[in-house]
Amino acid sequence: MSKIKMKSNLAPFPKPGCIIGAMVDGRPNFMNIVWVNRMNISPNILAASVNVKHYTLKGIKQNQSFSLNFPSIDLVEKTDYVGLVSGRDVDKSKLFEVFYGDDENTPMIRECPINIECKVHDMVELPDHVVVFGEVLNVYSEEQYMTDGALDPKKFNPIVFTRPGPIGTYWKLGDSIGRAWSIGKNLFE
Amino acid sequence: MSKIKMKSNLAPFPKPGCIIGAMVDGRPNFMNIVWVNRMNISPNILAASVNVKHYTLKGIKQNQSFSLNFPSIDLVEKTDYVGLVSGRDVDKSKLFEVFYGDDENTPMIRECPINIECKVHDMVELPDHVVVFGEVLNVYSEEQYMTDGALDPKKFNPIVFTRPGPIGTYWKLGDSIGRAWSIGKNLFE
Repeated sequence: MSKIKMKSNLAPFPKPGCIIGAMVDGRPNFMNIVWVNRMNISPNILAASVNVKHYTLKGIKQNQSFSLNFPSIDLVEKTDYVGLVSGRDVDKSKLFEVFYGDDENTPMIRECPINIECKVHDMVELPDHVVVFGEVLNVYSEEQYMTDGALDPKKFNPIVFTRPGPIGTYWKLGDSIGRAWSIGKNLFE
Repeated sequence: MSKIKMKSNLAPFPKPGCIIGAMVDGRPNFMNIVWVNRMNISPNILAASVNVKHYTLKGIKQNQSFSLNFPSIDLVEKTDYVGLVSGRDVDKSKLFEVFYGDDENTPMIRECPINIECKVHDMVELPDHVVVFGEVLNVYSEEQYMTDGALDPKKFNPIVFTRPGPIGTYWKLGDSIGRAWSIGKNLFE
């Protein structure tokens, strides 16, 4: 079959289910965010793209810090909920058990298996979003999500997000189909 | 259980299986890349973070354009392979059936269910990577991957990538666990 042109508003996916945390006017706030990824190896720099309208951005600017919290599938309702209501209208600080790492202005979510504490490295302004580059200060998790000392995706059950059109869907991880930097070696001549 | 500090080199995941395409010195080249995501709504701007050492970066700079190609799970070996060998050493232009959209210097992969054709919007230099911001010119797909005119993740079977430590793994999508901007409404009072 031949290729056809689609509407050009598609975004790369699958993406991670993720909740960004920031202290806004002294109160922890959390928001669903899927436009995140790693950007640099050393130091470890991530990027999160935040709509200029979002309340969370105010807190990131105030404290020059934020957290990324990766929920497991049992948190899918709350993950979606924090993307539906704004911290301007609703106090989201009591939705989760909040904990802190090295920085008292970077709230993190205890229920999430993985938490990344970041300080702002730089911000790049795009027309309707601000790309917040964050340098990773610390990563937190728990023994129960590990196998032989390494995080085990099948133990913490990450949320996978797709949005190939108007409808966004959350998914579980399926079966493993291969090891990276390995399965491609089958094509070596 | 209590939180423990991990090594701070973790990156957000799951990520998409993705192959970046660029014309380097007149020859199509392709590389596995998972550090991609959307960054802006209007215009649709994506970011792909490319290691400064990569041959692909030369082509992106030469033509100020690149493509993102999203493979289905049956392409997992080739997806991994193009991340294992450099275009400096190996001609990867014959690995796939290459097609072009509006720009003759932006090679895309016909076998991939989704192709995004981008022109460079801006580049941001980080210590070991260059973040290439690309404005989406066109998105291409095929009828066979759609349901009611919209792309259907279960039809094109995207590759999901995780790397929670030294070992990276490719996965299938699992079961759906909820609709976005919807399931969170269960928590409305």
